[in-house]
Amino acid sequence: MKQQGAVVWFSGFSGAGKSTIAEALTEKLKSEGYQLEVLDGDEVRENLTKDLGFSKEDRDTNLRRIGFVAKLLARNGVIVLAPVISPYRAIREEMRANIDNFVEVFVNAPISVCEERDVKGLYKKVRAGEIKQFTGISDPYEPPTNPEVECRTDLEEISESADKIFKKIKELGYIS
Amino acid sequence: MKQQGAVVWFSGFSGAGKSTIAEALTEKLKSEGYQLEVLDGDEVRENLTKDLGFSKEDRDTNLRRIGFVAKLLARNGVIVLAPVISPYRAIREEMRANIDNFVEVFVNAPISVCEERDVKGLYKKVRAGEIKQFTGISDPYEPPTNPEVECRTDLEEISESADKIFKKIKELGYIS
Repeated sequence: MKQQGAVVWFSGFSGAGKSTIAEALTEKLKSEGYQLEVLDGDEVRENLTKDLGFSKEDRDTNLRRIGFVAKLLARNGVIVLAPVISPYRAIREEMRANIDNFVEVFVNAPISVCEERDVKGLYKKVRAGEIKQFTGISDPYEPPTNPEVECRTDLEEISESADKIFKKIKELGYIS
Repeated sequence: MKQQGAVVWFSGFSGAGKSTIAEALTEKLKSEGYQLEVLDGDEVRENLTKDLGFSKEDRDTNLRRIGFVAKLLARNGVIVLAPVISPYRAIREEMRANIDNFVEVFVNAPISVCEERDVKGLYKKVRAGEIKQFTGISDPYEPPTNPEVECRTDLEEISESADKIFKKIKELGYIS
């Protein structure tokens, strides 16, 4: 399959469904023979950003490192999926300015829905006061103003969300 | 051109000629149409490891981050050149164990020759006491015991060194 490198950047609350959609999209792309990498939180944090916390500055540094790696991969023809909360608009715009073929996906669900899901048990810890800085509760989240794709995960199925992104990447000419 | 991903890891003193050989090899590979990335000190330090100093622990972390990125690129078919001092044997062996198609290049010149060249003016700073931890003078360097290629940059031309590595990569089947 013909492909260009591209970076699909998933922004949204913890529990909004970023990684789950990235997984579904991975399946779909792989089944059609495309080459991709998922820069998911755990592997990246272990290997690139173990030293960082969750202050604004540390979050920005974290995202800049992910962006740097994503850019290197993308300019070598790889489709990169980056499911990362990335709450601040300025840093996402910086990524967009620095990276060719940048696709911003807003993974959107009301915070109450995300908290109800609480897949990783993090919201419980926030409410218990064990986590201080938490996006959407005690820390800001600045929603994308003009994302290439918006997925309303409280209203649509995971497969619908993945399909929307797949179609957008195709429409943009990054896959054929 | 047909290529496999591979990581060419240049180890040696500051001033031994790692970056210069990597540049010559880059020219040669590009002129034949191969796809590659150079993970050179400055760009990497700016983007991935700004926080790190030169203690053994920090050096190891630095190399692990470079290794992680190199691995991601190589497994997507890119030839990665990494000119990095990497003084400690154990971390280089860790890279070898973790990365497929790992090619260790020992860029070797006597420290006196490197100091005489002093391309970056660093040896002068060391002698003036402005730099404390410096590989080969006040910090250890553990030479590779079994590198795929050794370049004696005090005895051979840059182009000879680059050719030797090119031939080795070919012999190993990473380029055709």
